[in-house]
Amino acid sequence: MKIALGLAAGFVVLTLASFLPMQKKKVIFFGDSITQAAVKPGGYIVKVGDMAAAEKLSDRYDFIGAGIGGNKVYDLFLRMDDDVLSKRPDVVIIYIGVNDVWHKRSYGTGTDADKFERFYTAIIKKLQAANCKIALCTPAVIGERTDSSNELDGDLNLYSNMIRNLAKANSLPLIDLRKAFLDYNLKENKENKESGILTTDRVHLNEKGNELVASEMWKVLKAL
Amino acid sequence: MKIALGLAAGFVVLTLASFLPMQKKKVIFFGDSITQAAVKPGGYIVKVGDMAAAEKLSDRYDFIGAGIGGNKVYDLFLRMDDDVLSKRPDVVIIYIGVNDVWHKRSYGTGTDADKFERFYTAIIKKLQAANCKIALCTPAVIGERTDSSNELDGDLNLYSNMIRNLAKANSLPLIDLRKAFLDYNLKENKENKESGILTTDRVHLNEKGNELVASEMWKVLKAL
Amino acid sequence: MKIALGLAAGFVVLTLASFLPMQKKKVIFFGDSITQAAVKPGGYIVKVGDMAAAEKLSDRYDFIGAGIGGNKVYDLFLRMDDDVLSKRPDVVIIYIGVNDVWHKRSYGTGTDADKFERFYTAIIKKLQAANCKIALCTPAVIGERTDSSNELDGDLNLYSNMIRNLAKANSLPLIDLRKAFLDYNLKENKENKESGILTTDRVHLNEKGNELVASEMWKVLKAL
Amino acid sequence: MKIALGLAAGFVVLTLASFLPMQKKKVIFFGDSITQAAVKPGGYIVKVGDMAAAEKLSDRYDFIGAGIGGNKVYDLFLRMDDDVLSKRPDVVIIYIGVNDVWHKRSYGTGTDADKFERFYTAIIKKLQAANCKIALCTPAVIGERTDSSNELDGDLNLYSNMIRNLAKANSLPLIDLRKAFLDYNLKENKENKESGILTTDRVHLNEKGNELVASEMWKVLKAL
Repeated sequence: MKIALGLAAGFVVLTLASFLPMQKKKVIFFGDSITQAAVKPGGYIVKVGDMAAAEKLSDRYDFIGAGIGGNKVYDLFLRMDDDVLSKRPDVVIIYIGVNDVWHKRSYGTGTDADKFERFYTAIIKKLQAANCKIALCTPAVIGERTDSSNELDGDLNLYSNMIRNLAKANSLPLIDLRKAFLDYNLKENKENKESGILTTDRVHLNEKGNELVASEMWKVLKAL
Repeated sequence: MKIALGLAAGFVVLTLASFLPMQKKKVIFFGDSITQAAVKPGGYIVKVGDMAAAEKLSDRYDFIGAGIGGNKVYDLFLRMDDDVLSKRPDVVIIYIGVNDVWHKRSYGTGTDADKFERFYTAIIKKLQAANCKIALCTPAVIGERTDSSNELDGDLNLYSNMIRNLAKANSLPLIDLRKAFLDYNLKENKENKESGILTTDRVHLNEKGNELVASEMWKVLKAL
Repeated sequence: MKIALGLAAGFVVLTLASFLPMQKKKVIFFGDSITQAAVKPGGYIVKVGDMAAAEKLSDRYDFIGAGIGGNKVYDLFLRMDDDVLSKRPDVVIIYIGVNDVWHKRSYGTGTDADKFERFYTAIIKKLQAANCKIALCTPAVIGERTDSSNELDGDLNLYSNMIRNLAKANSLPLIDLRKAFLDYNLKENKENKESGILTTDRVHLNEKGNELVASEMWKVLKAL
Repeated sequence: MKIALGLAAGFVVLTLASFLPMQKKKVIFFGDSITQAAVKPGGYIVKVGDMAAAEKLSDRYDFIGAGIGGNKVYDLFLRMDDDVLSKRPDVVIIYIGVNDVWHKRSYGTGTDADKFERFYTAIIKKLQAANCKIALCTPAVIGERTDSSNELDGDLNLYSNMIRNLAKANSLPLIDLRKAFLDYNLKENKENKESGILTTDRVHLNEKGNELVASEMWKVLKAL
């Protein structure tokens, strides 16, 4: 009897489990205009959703965009309570850095390298304190030329190196978009064009660009 | 009896008060290189100390410099726990803004106007939460020409206006160094020189400049 | 006979002169995008033409636009042979300076103050060598706020001062658009707006702006 | 007799030749602060002289420095009559470009890429019209890191490419200092330092840097 009862109880639990909704992972994509556009049709967040669906994993994830145009690392810092922590995410993908470099040129208000690291670290610490899993992205491109002659390549490499080091130092997964974009362009951009391969305008993603970002992110997300 | 006792008790209290050490007000000057230099002989913090001494008020104040070269508003924000709040000041004089404007030109890493206001407000709120009295300074000059032809005059006026508005909105005393410096130069800089009147190099204070800043600050400090 | 012939010949000449078309003054407006737009309907060159017509002076002038967007003083220098001297103008109105200041901020490629003066002087010398009459304009505005808080006011004042000095030093008429715009805004821009009074976007002229520029230019042109 | 006479005549010619002064080639080094420093002891122009001496070729060359600190391509253009053409040089080594890129960052007054090419071309044409031989140098470095992470690497590569193309298009010898410096650093700068390998301060040459520039230049000069 006892054994039978045990088996029966086990059966019931199992049955309940299969009826109960799966606990979904809430994933927030935290970034700038590239991420702001990513929730639109064809955007990389939509495509990550498609990739999850193709593997029948849609019920395991909630994908939420939290991108605002023009944001730099300290904008993320200033709005992370309101836009990220208040939503209690399980995973946060940080994708920032383009404007920290670009705004040096266009507005004179880029971010000093040492300050970039300090604010980035502050964001990581605060997310970790809230028990979020985190993945870090390098900023992909400002210009797609492959011979290191895009005006801001030097600085973009420097800030990407800082993010790579932050990932290593904090044992966090890295989504190295800058490397992925350069590798892709070395194959597909034989004419050394400034844009039109993965971006529409040297910075913002075209369809191929959204696909590449989505697939790089999904690889890392699945494993988290 | 009751009356006599009352008098006696009153006497005791009075006596104790005159023997007990005065509770000194701890005043922290929170700023950039101008404030970093201000603790050296001839610097404006030393001169504020002299002014207090001249009025026999030295025992009422502890004057502490907390200036670091190159600091912008978000540097103050990042180090305020370590360098200000940990010292439990009674009064904090915030003197920042020159580099927020200047670094747009020299490094491409100045501070956006809206971000300047957000970080400045965050500093005020945090100091108020710690029960500090606060006074705000406008950034004096980057260039002493009096005909509005210093390269960064426009932006320096804009950021000074923001600080004036923050003082008003938060009912905080304003030490309007920019106005004081312009008024002084209109009188004393008839040749419309770039520097040498109140500064050595368009930005950092010479002796007259330190005196002017000290006297403007002391006027406000005494009344706090 | 001799006398009669002389009289007759004199008569013939006089008669021919009254039938021959007036020699028109060729006036070239030499500048940047503001001047490029000025030949369109409602533009300031069209309006100068209207003002000439209203005074029945249309047959005395040919008004020609030679503005190219983004031009700085050395762009004028580089293209003055092709775009100005080759057309043998009688009068050249030089209207340059906005981008020399503005591009410091937006592209990092503004013009050093001393180089601005050198190239400007080289243009004047070359036009004078070709016997052109010349009038110089100060750059009007980058932002219409009236309290000297437009970001680039300081530099725009400095470069305007240089142009005023060049006019004086070379005894050339000055069309002081910067002064005219500030005076107008002090009356009409009580809310201290950045744009919308004389410009559409802080720099380029709306209808009122085109009118003001045209009337300032026409005053000087008539007297040349 | 005839033969003896022939020999005698030959002897005479030889004798005259050894008494007549060799026609020296006047070589002008035309550039910025790097070239201004190059005439000092240890400077690259002095070292080129030493290299000529070591090959007993001192009597064939006059080496003249024409470098001025802060110069950009249009500074060379503006002063080439006074500082170069008036001296009737046989050879001009053009070494410019660092400030055209660097001043974008430090003063907001760098040179637009298309304007760089136009002024550079104008200099070449004017030197060619004066029958000067010309060699073009690429700007070596602003920062010696070897992983393309110096802030201005992208732009410096772009402007170097323009100079390489100008050399090719005009069939002029190229002294590719940028390539030479990168090759050297890849071997000798294993720690990826910003300076101290070939420069003192990321830009200006130390002893090794002066040696490398001198030897690259001497190779080309000898063959001209």
